Amino acid sequence: MTRIHLDRVLAPGDAVPLPDTHAHHLGVVLRLQPGAEFEVIDRSGARFGGRLVAGPPLGVEVLDARSAVGTDLAGELEVWLPLLKGGRSDDLVRQLTELGATRIVPWTGRRSVARAQGGKSGQKLARWRTIAREACQQCGRARAPEVAEPGCLPDAGPGVFFYEGGGALAREALAGAVEGGRLRVLTGPEGGLDPDEVEQLRRAGWVAAHLGPRVLRADTAVLCAATLALHALGEGGF
Amino acid sequence: MTRIHLDRVLAPGDAVPLPDTHAHHLGVVLRLQPGAEFEVIDRSGARFGGRLVAGPPLGVEVLDARSAVGTDLAGELEVWLPLLKGGRSDDLVRQLTELGATRIVPWTGRRSVARAQGGKSGQKLARWRTIAREACQQCGRARAPEVAEPGCLPDAGPGVFFYEGGGALAREALAGAVEGGRLRVLTGPEGGLDPDEVEQLRRAGWVAAHLGPRVLRADTAVLCAATLALHALGEGGF
Repeated sequence: MTRIHLDRVLAPGDAVPLPDTHAHHLGVVLRLQPGAEFEVIDRSGARFGGRLVAGPPLGVEVLDARSAVGTDLAGELEVWLPLLKGGRSDDLVRQLTELGATRIVPWTGRRSVARAQGGKSGQKLARWRTIAREACQQCGRARAPEVAEPGCLPDAGPGVFFYEGGGALAREALAGAVEGGRLRVLTGPEGGLDPDEVEQLRRAGWVAAHLGPRVLRADTAVLCAATLALHALGEGGF
Repeated sequence: MTRIHLDRVLAPGDAVPLPDTHAHHLGVVLRLQPGAEFEVIDRSGARFGGRLVAGPPLGVEVLDARSAVGTDLAGELEVWLPLLKGGRSDDLVRQLTELGATRIVPWTGRRSVARAQGGKSGQKLARWRTIAREACQQCGRARAPEVAEPGCLPDAGPGVFFYEGGGALAREALAGAVEGGRLRVLTGPEGGLDPDEVEQLRRAGWVAAHLGPRVLRADTAVLCAATLALHALGEGGF
């Protein structure tokens, strides 16, 4: 969503003229019409919805602070998160929540170092759900992502998975896998994906892509893939 | 760079016909001409340069494993990394190296919780340089990024900085700031940028952008900004 920053303190119901640079940006560059909505941040950092008011000069009507500004994703992003050792999965649940993932599916691969089986699986799931809820409050998201039961590989697509041997460029594969504003991505555990897993994902309709010639460690790959997926979804700010 | 995966073991000097799907992708979809170079990964995961050989059927000539495949960035990415507490900066130096950053500039903001001043500054710098070198070996990069002395804000642009009040969309701001294949990005410390810092960056010619309506924590923002910058630079895989 388009966002402007006004150097004054605002309150819902205010109607103020736009400075020339903003008026030019919204009216000429972006060709917004009167009635179009965007986001306004005031001098204090408070965030509002705004509606364009016809000019000249063009103005903005300040809408309600909460209802007008959506902080949840417009689309859906499902991230298959490999179980990582040393608490890295915890950090990634927090970071994926900040980024906007709507569904997180922890999974264990054949080469995974970390495991979530037996009695500890339930504990981990409960902890991740707590982390996701807390991250929502911190980042201003209204709805927490669903954190699914830890499992194995997906048996249905479409989606994009990333590994060193993946043939497609990330940007092309991601753009091609968006379906009704929805996208699924998957990256591998510390030990990578094994050939059978690659084959299984292909059979399930997933596209194999790569993230450049450098080998990303598992934690880096998750965030990189999620960021590129948000870009492909056209999420505001990405 | 375009990359294909061949289900056989290769060695430099081999000339092999391409399977139909690859021939179609390279010759029809991407319209590569004979002589065009791309990357080939063989069944064992080994990586080679490849050169398209005229057909029919189209083939690939396998080039040298090392010299043909560049793992360093084609362009330049300078990341201004805020000093973060609890060793998070260490992790980020490693992750930025994997992603391909060519220059990392640690900086301390007014609201930074962590400090790198006095005697400890030199120790931290030495540690980061070691981390960057080790990460290069792990990720297959040839050249380590330069890690600059920790300092304050940049006094020259152009570049893109990210904060909640930034008006520009990341994708637009980044695309506009690429200059000769070079891009600079900056994100804030845990406490964010203060208004004077924002003003100082603007005066230095930096563009203020945002990363969506959710508030990203400092560590997440660094990787998200770097990933989007690589995308804007057109780096292969991003």
